[in-house]
Amino acid sequence: MVLDVFEHVTLGQRVVFGAGRAAEHVAAEVARRGAGRVMVVASPREREIAERVCARIEVGVWFDDVVQHVPVGKAQRARAVAAERGMDLLVSVGGGSTVGLAKAVALTAGIPIVAVPTTYAGSEATNVWGLTEDRTKTTGVDDRVLPATVIYDATLTTSLPVDLSVASGLNGLAHCVDSLWAPRADPINQALALEGARALALALPGIVSDPADLTARERALYGCYLSAVAFASAGSGLHHKICHVLGGTFDLPHAQTHAIVLRYVVALNTPAVPELAGRLAVALGGSADEGQGPAGTAVETLNRLYETLDAPRRLADHGLTEGDLAEAVSRVLEAAPPSNPTPVTRENLTILLRDALEGVTPSPGLQPVR
Amino acid sequence: MVLDVFEHVTLGQRVVFGAGRAAEHVAAEVARRGAGRVMVVASPREREIAERVCARIEVGVWFDDVVQHVPVGKAQRARAVAAERGMDLLVSVGGGSTVGLAKAVALTAGIPIVAVPTTYAGSEATNVWGLTEDRTKTTGVDDRVLPATVIYDATLTTSLPVDLSVASGLNGLAHCVDSLWAPRADPINQALALEGARALALALPGIVSDPADLTARERALYGCYLSAVAFASAGSGLHHKICHVLGGTFDLPHAQTHAIVLRYVVALNTPAVPELAGRLAVALGGSADEGQGPAGTAVETLNRLYETLDAPRRLADHGLTEGDLAEAVSRVLEAAPPSNPTPVTRENLTILLRDALEGVTPSPGLQPVR
Repeated sequence: MVLDVFEHVTLGQRVVFGAGRAAEHVAAEVARRGAGRVMVVASPREREIAERVCARIEVGVWFDDVVQHVPVGKAQRARAVAAERGMDLLVSVGGGSTVGLAKAVALTAGIPIVAVPTTYAGSEATNVWGLTEDRTKTTGVDDRVLPATVIYDATLTTSLPVDLSVASGLNGLAHCVDSLWAPRADPINQALALEGARALALALPGIVSDPADLTARERALYGCYLSAVAFASAGSGLHHKICHVLGGTFDLPHAQTHAIVLRYVVALNTPAVPELAGRLAVALGGSADEGQGPAGTAVETLNRLYETLDAPRRLADHGLTEGDLAEAVSRVLEAAPPSNPTPVTRENLTILLRDALEGVTPSPGLQPVR
Repeated sequence: MVLDVFEHVTLGQRVVFGAGRAAEHVAAEVARRGAGRVMVVASPREREIAERVCARIEVGVWFDDVVQHVPVGKAQRARAVAAERGMDLLVSVGGGSTVGLAKAVALTAGIPIVAVPTTYAGSEATNVWGLTEDRTKTTGVDDRVLPATVIYDATLTTSLPVDLSVASGLNGLAHCVDSLWAPRADPINQALALEGARALALALPGIVSDPADLTARERALYGCYLSAVAFASAGSGLHHKICHVLGGTFDLPHAQTHAIVLRYVVALNTPAVPELAGRLAVALGGSADEGQGPAGTAVETLNRLYETLDAPRRLADHGLTEGDLAEAVSRVLEAAPPSNPTPVTRENLTILLRDALEGVTPSPGLQPVR
C-alpha cells in the first residue's frame, strides 16, 4: 500500500438488499421520506415487474417512454410531466436506460430517486448522467442525480439469461479490476473494488451452475454495485480505454468485449504491481501459495474462472479482424493513461490485442507461451 | 459471505490525505466552498499547530475554549459566537474533543465542518455528536455534524508518543475487528473494517521501529479513519460492551483496555466465523497456510503483532483485580449482543476476563493451554 497525496470522495447513499423484498422496501422508503407524489419510471417491458415492486405505494404517474441513451426529447417530456403533476419522488425500476431517464429528471427537478435495478448496469451507484442529442452523447457529474436509495432484489434478475449474466458480470469484474490502477485509484476505491471482485468471483460460477440460485444472483448484484462505486471513484484505466476504442471504432459488443479484454490487461499489468496482484488473486479465490508469484496466481485464477464460466474469449468471434489490429493499437496508444502500471508501448499493445483477437490463454507480462 | 436482508448507509464525505500538505489543502477547501467567514476551533494546546494549518486562510474567529466531553455551556458559547459573527464554515484542528465542539455548533448552526485531525480518535468520520450536562452525556446522530471534508496530514501526529500511538492504534484495530460481528455488520462495513485492519497491522510496527516514519503515521491515520467509518456503520459488538463495562464500572483506561481485551474476543469468536477469521488473518499479515485453520491463524497473527508492538497485555496492570471478575462478568452478560457469533455464557466470559486479567496468551476458542 503506497499512500500518497490523494483525495477520495465518498458519495452518500442508502443501499438496501433483500431477495423478494423490493415491494416492502420501496414502501418503507416512500414512507420514510414522506413522499406523496411518486413518479415511477419503467419501460413497457419492465412494467409488470414495476407494478409488483410498486404494489404497496400510491403511484402518481407511470412514465414508460424509456429508450436507450436518454434522448433529450424524452428527458424533456419526463421533466414536463413531473413538473406539471408536482412529483416529489422518482422511483426507477429497470436497467441503465431507465435510471438514466430518472437521472435526467432529477438533474433539473432536484427531486430524489429511489432506484430498483433489474440488471447489473451499476448506473444506480453513480452521480454520472448522460443525455443524447443528434447522435451526440453529453455526460456530466452532479450529486443531484445520484439515487438517494437503491433497493436491490435478486428475484428481479433471475430472468437475465446465463450468458448475458456472465458477460455482464465480467463487465462488472472489469470495472473492479481496472479501478485498481485507474488514474484516480486510491486505497479506498481499491478496497471496494477488491471486495466487488471477490463477490463476483463467487457469484458467477453459482449462476452458471444454477441460474435460479438467489444467493448467487444477490452476490452478483452486490459485486456489480461495488464495481460501479469503485469505478465511478477511480476513473477509466487502460482496460476501459481499449474497450472504448474497440466498441467505438469497430462496433464490437459491449459486455463481451469487456469480458474478453480483461484477462490480457491483468496479464500485462500485474507483474508491475505485485502487492495488488496478490490481493486480486486472493479476491478471485486463488490461494497465495501456488508457487508462481502474485501476478502468475492472479492470471491463473482468472483463467480458471473463465473456464468455469465458459466465458467469451476471442475478439475474432465478435467481429475484430487481424486487419484491424494496427489501427486499434494506434488509437489505444493515444488514449492509454500515463498512470498505467506497465508502460504501454506499440509492441506490448500489439501482443495484447493479437492475443485477445485469437483467444490465446494469457500469462503474466503477456509472454509468448504459444 | 452470507448476504441476507441488509441496509447500508454510506455517509458522503470528502477525505484528503497528504503529509505536510494540511495548510495547502485547508486553503483549497475554503476556496472551493467559497467560505468567507471561518471559525477555527482548536484548544490552546493545539493553537500552534492550528496556526500553521490555517496559515493560508483568513480566520474570522479563533475559538479555543475546548474541554473534554463537550459541556453544554461551552457548546452554547461557541454557537453564540458563530451566530453573532455570521460564520459560514468551521475548521476544527485537534482530537476528539475539538471536533466534538465543532459538531455541537454545526448541529444547530447547520454550517459545514472541515476537520483536521491530530490524533487517531476517528470522530471526524462519524455523524455522531455528544454533549455533557450535569455529568450526563447525551449522544445523537445527525448528518449535519458529519464533517464535510476531512484533511489528514501525518506530520501533525508525529508528536504522539509511541506507547499512546500503539494503544490508540489498537483501539482503532478493535473498532475494525468488532465491526466484523457487530449487530449491524454487513459485507460493506466488513470490507472497510478489514482494509482498516490491514493498514493498522502494517502501520503500528513501523511507528514502533521509527516514531518519525511518516508513511507509517499516515497508514495509521488511514486505518483509524476506516475503523471509525466501519464502526459507525456496524455498531458496538461484544468487544465494545466488555470495554464499556470495564471503563464505566472499574474506571480502567480507555485505549489500554481496548488493546488488551481485543485478542480474547478474537479468540472467542473466530472459531464460529471461519471465513471472516481467514480474511482477518490475511488482513493482519498472516498467510493462509499456517496449518492451524483460519481462527488459529488469526489469533496467532494477532499474538505476533502484540509481541512486535510490546502492546499492553494484562488488565491487572491497569487496575482490574480478581475480585472484580464476578461483577464484570454479570454486567457484560446483560449487555452482550445476541448477534455475537459465539454465544456468550457466564463460563466463557469468565475465562475471557480472567485470561485478560492475567495476560494469558489466547488460543482459538479460549481453550486453556496454560
